[in-house]
Amino acid sequence: MRLDDLPTPSLILDRTRLEKNIARLQGRARDLGVALRPHLKTAKSARVAELATGGKGPITVSTLAEATYFAGHGFQDITYAVPIVPAKLDTIAGLLAKSVDLKLITDNEVVAKAIAERGRALGVTFRVLIKIDTGLGRAGIAPDSEALLPIAKALHASGAELAGVLAHAGHSYNASSIEEIKEIAEAERAGVVKAAERLRAAGLPCPIVSVGSTPTAIHAEKLDGVTEMRPGNFVFFDLFQLGIESCEVNEIAVSVLASVSGHHRERNHILIDAGGLALSKDTGANRNAPGTGYGLVCLPGGKVPLPGLAVLDVHQEHGLIGHQRALDAINNLPFERFPVGSRLRVLPNHVCMTAAMYDRYYVTEGGTEIVDEWDRVNGW
Amino acid sequence: MRLDDLPTPSLILDRTRLEKNIARLQGRARDLGVALRPHLKTAKSARVAELATGGKGPITVSTLAEATYFAGHGFQDITYAVPIVPAKLDTIAGLLAKSVDLKLITDNEVVAKAIAERGRALGVTFRVLIKIDTGLGRAGIAPDSEALLPIAKALHASGAELAGVLAHAGHSYNASSIEEIKEIAEAERAGVVKAAERLRAAGLPCPIVSVGSTPTAIHAEKLDGVTEMRPGNFVFFDLFQLGIESCEVNEIAVSVLASVSGHHRERNHILIDAGGLALSKDTGANRNAPGTGYGLVCLPGGKVPLPGLAVLDVHQEHGLIGHQRALDAINNLPFERFPVGSRLRVLPNHVCMTAAMYDRYYVTEGGTEIVDEWDRVNGW
Repeated sequence: MRLDDLPTPSLILDRTRLEKNIARLQGRARDLGVALRPHLKTAKSARVAELATGGKGPITVSTLAEATYFAGHGFQDITYAVPIVPAKLDTIAGLLAKSVDLKLITDNEVVAKAIAERGRALGVTFRVLIKIDTGLGRAGIAPDSEALLPIAKALHASGAELAGVLAHAGHSYNASSIEEIKEIAEAERAGVVKAAERLRAAGLPCPIVSVGSTPTAIHAEKLDGVTEMRPGNFVFFDLFQLGIESCEVNEIAVSVLASVSGHHRERNHILIDAGGLALSKDTGANRNAPGTGYGLVCLPGGKVPLPGLAVLDVHQEHGLIGHQRALDAINNLPFERFPVGSRLRVLPNHVCMTAAMYDRYYVTEGGTEIVDEWDRVNGW
Repeated sequence: MRLDDLPTPSLILDRTRLEKNIARLQGRARDLGVALRPHLKTAKSARVAELATGGKGPITVSTLAEATYFAGHGFQDITYAVPIVPAKLDTIAGLLAKSVDLKLITDNEVVAKAIAERGRALGVTFRVLIKIDTGLGRAGIAPDSEALLPIAKALHASGAELAGVLAHAGHSYNASSIEEIKEIAEAERAGVVKAAERLRAAGLPCPIVSVGSTPTAIHAEKLDGVTEMRPGNFVFFDLFQLGIESCEVNEIAVSVLASVSGHHRERNHILIDAGGLALSKDTGANRNAPGTGYGLVCLPGGKVPLPGLAVLDVHQEHGLIGHQRALDAINNLPFERFPVGSRLRVLPNHVCMTAAMYDRYYVTEGGTEIVDEWDRVNGW
């Protein structure tokens, strides 16, 4: 089967790029002396997880659906890195009963107490990491927070087990230079290590000291005191990561295959059958790379985007390709290169959001032949 | 089962509001003397389609997956209202063979010829409407376009059948007043009727004269010469439609049930387990209603949003609730009203995008009891 035989829109994964991206971050983890616990919220695929961990190694997930799916594929060391809500504990206990070492996170003493209480009631031990905030300002407590020890003590009790501390420097996505990403990475490291030291000084255990985001995993200069990193986006990369210099454009491993559905010369746009659902409505990449729109355009077998073209507008099932720069719009689009019915690929603005709309990857080795088909787990 | 028993995030549908919204647009269609062919791209649900058509009536779809799903549920009069790509014709022929009257659209003479040719090769007759643009500037040709008759003639041939003309005044979403929506509705009507008259004057058939968008369906003053309307969003409404006065806030029928996963008093935000995937990243409603963010917040059994609160930021699986107006942010959020682990509902910014992330609706009658569970068809 070839790209031309697929329905459109479809999600295309270049395995050659994927493997190179994985090797790069595995090398980073090795050089920094930490384990790689990839975040599968991006790929949501057992095949990608196997490549990224070299087998059935440690992984991170963002939903119970992912936890259940990966457990079913033989992954037994899983961290569910979204603040746990007590109502989800019974489902988690069901996974623990199947010998899955599923670790949770919290930043809240009331929740910590509820976890231990529910663990006792169910006769299980929930392993929990405390979420540390090092500047993102989303979930987590500050490394020097007074709340740290009360939460830790609530977890160091029958029914629960204090498994460590965890930070996510997601504000690295907003950095304006690699130098700033390095600073954020060091603050992420120093913050989570400080929290770990406070726990240990209080006589509490802290086996896991976890950091992770793709930009900080790529640019951190040292991870002393840290035990693992949890980048996720790096397996695929996207135009946002390109804009903050996490990758080169020829390292973006996922794209959307679309068909040209219309030519409108009088409006100087090309219409495709990939719109707001097929590409997502995330426009974050435009901050660093204005004109990125909802994605850049490649020929089906092309290695890099065609210069000057982007999907500039989307409706639910329509995408409109135009000139990235208004200055170029005095020229006609290359309509002859994209006849109606022909195909093209769109590099995604933010691949985590785009991929979530598809139930499978069509896998290539960089060409137009489909060499495999990998499933994904969506929803909750 | 009650709201408290559901996993979060989940998609909640208030059937009482749904039925009222449907009755309203059925009344509009009746008053205007046209058929209602609801666009199921929003609901993607056979149960909603049955209510909206009073049985297995005429519907509109946006994907082949929807066409196949609704055909499987007994709907036989379907218009696939996205410009057809020739590679999809064989799948469509398979549906025609099952006695589904599936109508296509195009605005392109090359495609029109390809349709007829493929129809002859497959021994079927593809019924096709010509897409007319009345100002949206997406797909379609102008009512007075020279391209109209060549396309029509290419379709009035063995293997194809000219079924009519179709317009979608989606630019009504960008109108700044109801007066402007009325004008856009009249331009939609006049444009598509003009195209129909040109076809008939040339001795060509034009049985269907179709218009449709939720704002123009609600505000059109007359639809003389039109045979049907195709609004879609109206079954549910959302904060965007509220912003352009298509509905009242207590008519929004779909919401996302979420759990409170964190309190951050120092950052004055409440964290929930519904983020960019559960709510979508569409922010369109903020243009007319600044501060809408990614959605407004209701108590689980509440009828309308709590004043002043919105989901102001989303990450993949995290939503951050804060004050809609910066002025109010000097006050603390009502943390006591939303304990960690408690539930709330978020009214969606743009329901077509939000609902697309879920495989089912949990149906209520406006209270906290779940009275039914309806499936959806996503993907392509």
